Amino acid sequence: MAFRKFLPMFDRVLVERLAAETMSKGGIMLPEKAQGKVLQATVVAVGPGSINKSGALQPVCVKVGDSVLLPEYGGTKVLLDDKDYFLFRDADILGKYEN
Amino acid sequence: MAFRKFLPMFDRVLVERLAAETMSKGGIMLPEKAQGKVLQATVVAVGPGSINKSGALQPVCVKVGDSVLLPEYGGTKVLLDDKDYFLFRDADILGKYEN
Amino acid sequence: MAFRKFLPMFDRVLVERLAAETMSKGGIMLPEKAQGKVLQATVVAVGPGSINKSGALQPVCVKVGDSVLLPEYGGTKVLLDDKDYFLFRDADILGKYEN
Amino acid sequence: MAFRKFLPMFDRVLVERLAAETMSKGGIMLPEKAQGKVLQATVVAVGPGSINKSGALQPVCVKVGDSVLLPEYGGTKVLLDDKDYFLFRDADILGKYEN
Amino acid sequence: MAFRKFLPMFDRVLVERLAAETMSKGGIMLPEKAQGKVLQATVVAVGPGSINKSGALQPVCVKVGDSVLLPEYGGTKVLLDDKDYFLFRDADILGKYEN
Amino acid sequence: MAFRKFLPMFDRVLVERLAAETMSKGGIMLPEKAQGKVLQATVVAVGPGSINKSGALQPVCVKVGDSVLLPEYGGTKVLLDDKDYFLFRDADILGKYEN
Amino acid sequence: MAFRKFLPMFDRVLVERLAAETMSKGGIMLPEKAQGKVLQATVVAVGPGSINKSGALQPVCVKVGDSVLLPEYGGTKVLLDDKDYFLFRDADILGKYEN
Repeated sequence: MAFRKFLPMFDRVLVERLAAETMSKGGIMLPEKAQGKVLQATVVAVGPGSINKSGALQPVCVKVGDSVLLPEYGGTKVLLDDKDYFLFRDADILGKYEN
Repeated sequence: MAFRKFLPMFDRVLVERLAAETMSKGGIMLPEKAQGKVLQATVVAVGPGSINKSGALQPVCVKVGDSVLLPEYGGTKVLLDDKDYFLFRDADILGKYEN
Repeated sequence: MAFRKFLPMFDRVLVERLAAETMSKGGIMLPEKAQGKVLQATVVAVGPGSINKSGALQPVCVKVGDSVLLPEYGGTKVLLDDKDYFLFRDADILGKYEN
Repeated sequence: MAFRKFLPMFDRVLVERLAAETMSKGGIMLPEKAQGKVLQATVVAVGPGSINKSGALQPVCVKVGDSVLLPEYGGTKVLLDDKDYFLFRDADILGKYEN
Repeated sequence: MAFRKFLPMFDRVLVERLAAETMSKGGIMLPEKAQGKVLQATVVAVGPGSINKSGALQPVCVKVGDSVLLPEYGGTKVLLDDKDYFLFRDADILGKYEN
Repeated sequence: MAFRKFLPMFDRVLVERLAAETMSKGGIMLPEKAQGKVLQATVVAVGPGSINKSGALQPVCVKVGDSVLLPEYGGTKVLLDDKDYFLFRDADILGKYEN
Repeated sequence: MAFRKFLPMFDRVLVERLAAETMSKGGIMLPEKAQGKVLQATVVAVGPGSINKSGALQPVCVKVGDSVLLPEYGGTKVLLDDKDYFLFRDADILGKYEN
């Protein structure tokens, strides 16, 4: 897995967005433009955490495999082995889904 | 309940707005546009809290089931099981109604 | 009292503005537009206080019943039982009148 | 004294500006517009002080009766018993005159 | 000395700029406009210092009589006994000349 | 090696970008303009680290020889022995590749 | 040496830029405009350091005689004994060259 080789720094979290739904509820094929941005993703790698004012390490709150909800905006696109991943700060992830 | 599966992160609070009043005081049906934004809501899920400068966890001040008053602006719309919920920071909630 | 049921959060203070003077010093009735914004108000409910950097609770400095002077701008209008109240941060209240 | 009844909050200081000079050095009467803003004032009431990051009270550095020099801009005009007073933050007062 | 009566507050420093050079190196009289702003000055009064985050007093680093170099911009002009002085924050003074 | 003589200050990291790919996947020579900015780089020198609020030294998280992923923007170009290097803050480096 | 008399305040560092190269690599005389800004400089005087949040003195990280690399922008020009020197904050100096 490409990302095992990539280690995000500090409180950054590497995620892979779920595949976009290509068919509408009514069963109609959606052209790419109509497929909204996918906000659900899976965590594939996490940084060690951030260092707070007193110098202590603050670990991130998600772990590899977590299913999370991303904010509409923000994040940095990262190309790893020709595949798109995204880097978000731990604090910007809205929430996670209980497995 | 869909939200039981969704866990807000840090000091975020997931709320469900009360249904908008469809009838005016005088008993006249209100068209959707005339139904103002509903600022009262019920808390359906809460995050663990935020981490302060010294690294200690600061729990949120509302709990599931609380009836709260939302600010006019802000909040993030979240679609869970085809239903609209909203995420607010604990510190942005104006107040709560005693049960 | 409607506000007894409403509990402001953190360092917010719920106040009720004094009634505007409808007559000028010379005894002339003032049209609503000419009645300036009333900056004196009574405290009707207070939040528990804010949490400082070290995590300690900082109680608010006014109490229910205090007569206070509001700043010209700021504050959030809150409708409770069809009556207008206003929420101010404790730190934004200019001063209080000795009873 | 009206201000004895008014207690500024936190690190606010209530001052009364000295009367503007109505006559120029050469003995000519100055129209109101030509009388510059008076920057010297007397302290008439002080707040308890501000609360620093560690939660300790930081008393203000001027006391009632002090003669002070105000900055050109800033301050909030406050009408007390039909007389103009001004509220400044302790930290914005430029200096004081030894009595 | 007028300034002995004026006590700057906190970390403010009262300085008197050196007289501008009225003659160029080549001995030509300089019109007022050509006399650049004088950045060298003498300290005539100092405040007690500023209060840091933990509430401790941080004294200023210059003393009365020091010859200092002022920044090009900033500072507040103060008229004392009809003479121009300038108030600078201790932290804005660029450096001092060894006597 | 030129950079051994150059010691970045504080939490700055000196990196050398990998050579840009001059040929597309399909084997076609890419004109310089089409060769995107290279975001992968090697660390060639690191500063001692930054000093946090409490005065303790916070060492940088990468070491000489690490292969890192740079952000799209930011960084300062530095010419050393006629070769282009780049200075980034430790906190701005997105992640590193496991060797 | 003029600067021995000038003591920068706090974390300021006084530097003298190296002379600009007047001849190009190919031996052609460069007109003044073509001689880029010199970013290498020598430290000629340093301040005592800055005072951090807890009131402790944070000494500067360069010493007199160090050869340093300046950022492209920033710094304050200071005329001492008719010679141009520049004041930079310690934290803005990019790095130093090992002697």
